[in-house]
Amino acid sequence: MIKAAIMGYGTVGSGVYEVLTSNAGVIAERVGEEIEVKYVLDLREFPGDPVEKVLVHDVNVIMDDPEIKVVVEVMGGLKPAYDFVKTALLKGKSVATSNKELVAKHGAELIELAKANKASFLFEASVGGGIPIIRPLLTSVTADHIVEISGILNGTTNYILTAMSEEGADYDTVLKQAQDLGYAERNPEADVEGYDACRKIAILTSLALGKQVDFEDIYTEGITAIDGSDIAYAKALGGRIKLLGLSRMDGDRVCSMVAPFMVPADQPLYAVNGVFNGIFVKGNMVGDLMFYGSGAGKLPTASAVVGDVVEAAKTLGTTVPIEWSKEKVELTPMKEFTCRFFVRVKEDEQAVKKVFGNIEPVSAEGVTGEFAFLTEEMSEGDFDEKIKGLSLIHRIRSYF
Amino acid sequence: MIKAAIMGYGTVGSGVYEVLTSNAGVIAERVGEEIEVKYVLDLREFPGDPVEKVLVHDVNVIMDDPEIKVVVEVMGGLKPAYDFVKTALLKGKSVATSNKELVAKHGAELIELAKANKASFLFEASVGGGIPIIRPLLTSVTADHIVEISGILNGTTNYILTAMSEEGADYDTVLKQAQDLGYAERNPEADVEGYDACRKIAILTSLALGKQVDFEDIYTEGITAIDGSDIAYAKALGGRIKLLGLSRMDGDRVCSMVAPFMVPADQPLYAVNGVFNGIFVKGNMVGDLMFYGSGAGKLPTASAVVGDVVEAAKTLGTTVPIEWSKEKVELTPMKEFTCRFFVRVKEDEQAVKKVFGNIEPVSAEGVTGEFAFLTEEMSEGDFDEKIKGLSLIHRIRSYF
Repeated sequence: MIKAAIMGYGTVGSGVYEVLTSNAGVIAERVGEEIEVKYVLDLREFPGDPVEKVLVHDVNVIMDDPEIKVVVEVMGGLKPAYDFVKTALLKGKSVATSNKELVAKHGAELIELAKANKASFLFEASVGGGIPIIRPLLTSVTADHIVEISGILNGTTNYILTAMSEEGADYDTVLKQAQDLGYAERNPEADVEGYDACRKIAILTSLALGKQVDFEDIYTEGITAIDGSDIAYAKALGGRIKLLGLSRMDGDRVCSMVAPFMVPADQPLYAVNGVFNGIFVKGNMVGDLMFYGSGAGKLPTASAVVGDVVEAAKTLGTTVPIEWSKEKVELTPMKEFTCRFFVRVKEDEQAVKKVFGNIEPVSAEGVTGEFAFLTEEMSEGDFDEKIKGLSLIHRIRSYF
Repeated sequence: MIKAAIMGYGTVGSGVYEVLTSNAGVIAERVGEEIEVKYVLDLREFPGDPVEKVLVHDVNVIMDDPEIKVVVEVMGGLKPAYDFVKTALLKGKSVATSNKELVAKHGAELIELAKANKASFLFEASVGGGIPIIRPLLTSVTADHIVEISGILNGTTNYILTAMSEEGADYDTVLKQAQDLGYAERNPEADVEGYDACRKIAILTSLALGKQVDFEDIYTEGITAIDGSDIAYAKALGGRIKLLGLSRMDGDRVCSMVAPFMVPADQPLYAVNGVFNGIFVKGNMVGDLMFYGSGAGKLPTASAVVGDVVEAAKTLGTTVPIEWSKEKVELTPMKEFTCRFFVRVKEDEQAVKKVFGNIEPVSAEGVTGEFAFLTEEMSEGDFDEKIKGLSLIHRIRSYF
């Protein structure tokens, strides 16, 4: 019997409890031993709830109990999660977490601390909810140089963009809808401004490189500027607008960002809709891979957390190896990133051609009084220079 | 320095050599040691080829060399691969293979043999080419009861079906095209009759259950009966026809088959086209997952093989645990499988309704002189009984 504790009894925490109890039999078979939740830590009371009898309010009960071998951290945020996780690791307890802020900020340090204490620090659920992506990156795509990762990493924004596209509704209406359905927070900033996706692409890129990518260095643009006309143009092109976390890696040149992209139908991410996430990984040998599934939600996220609990339980007393050193990666400046740009300006085709040369005009039903086009592939720096000569309405990076 | 040998210098074998040499640096970082290919076994000569100096024709050179710790088996077929792999494992050498016949037939035995000799038997490349699917099933989706696996597991048939759909060409024309492009064998039977997909779904299902599913027990139907009218109906429905390897698992009830299915646009496999593979996994907690990538091809397949070489090299002297016992799973008879059926008959709507009751008529441009419809969900047994009263032209199982 292996004893575990869950810190935080919110959505994911209650999901972890549910997965560990509902699937106890099959989990015990895979671990070779039963896993018992000895404590659930939360400041609140849950009268009548099945966790009532294991609920504790003092984290030291967990930390001071040598029987506890695995601790699940699903409180979110840095305070007090960071201190709690450090204490657990220092005491040789393995930690499984879904906390992307914690992992993006302190991942390298906590992995080191785990190793020093013969424990594991595991965080599959911190990116892509229930999608297996971190363990496959670490243990399967090991024969390749990973040259690109681009992911739909945030379910809320993907739901909003999908609804705008399918219903032709505008951003504010769809956001309200998403809030009413519980897909978006009352304060949606972390999602719609891309901050959530930014932490996730920072984690994936750090793992792909084995070094620290600071999320604060990543250029981040959200979806609040996307309007109905952009959506109409995307449709006219046969594509969709997706908020991507994107990293391109070419030796020492690493470019990382979060931004909306025009995605064509032949790109696998095109078909990732609604609250689903999809993570595209390109290796120099294996080519294109995609990992798809529920990027959020109580049980999918809990499934990934419990997958880590299983891994930790199977390897007690040792450390699941993760290469992620504190050595900081200097990102290539955004002005060197190259792509095609979808652009809307107030001028006419003639004026645009004088500035951009070869372009591909784009027209969409019902959008008038402006001119839209796709540029050739060029650097952000070049684009920023050229666009100065025109009255820009909006521009979106493009995979076309 | 870890020394390895490659048995078979065909397409995949030369790919494995290329991956191990081109990506030697990053692979050495991940393993913690360099991997050197000391021998390549093939009956042929390769004058001028980089492997010329390590080429051997006698398997005993490899087996008798205690320096060889990892053996790659990419010869295909059972003879002599089975004997070679057994000998290697008996000598404590770990084996990485892409050989689906070998794994489907002898997987459980070879895993046991590996364990007894403190070696590993790894076979990521035997299903889905370069797609990480076997290791994620074994090490990531461990908190779930896997309730369904359905995969586009054969690139050749997916290429043919995609081309039939996009070009409106008939089966024979597209098959010839695929053969000319090297996507289909001169003798295409193993692909188009579903035998290849059958071995792959047998492997995945065995791993999901931890027990032996014999591929000979799996109902297998290929794509040779799909005609232009079927494709036209699929389009009219807003779907596509895909050859799926499918297993449904509900406690002791396991149904497994290979057959063409009508797949609607909202199913992730709909967007898996051309030579790509996609493997859909449904867990009772995580819900829908999909793994997507190149299902064949020299470098993608080699990437998966080398991923296994890396895993074996990192764990020398121990066994990577895989649960797959020889205990045989008795599959549920096909007549108990339930789904909707897409059906084409010679009779009219009235006659059909008398037999099937509630149906959904389907019409496609340019197809006349017959009546097509979707049944309600029913068992194969019921369907087989009912259809006796009508003149069946064709029926395809349906995910609609």
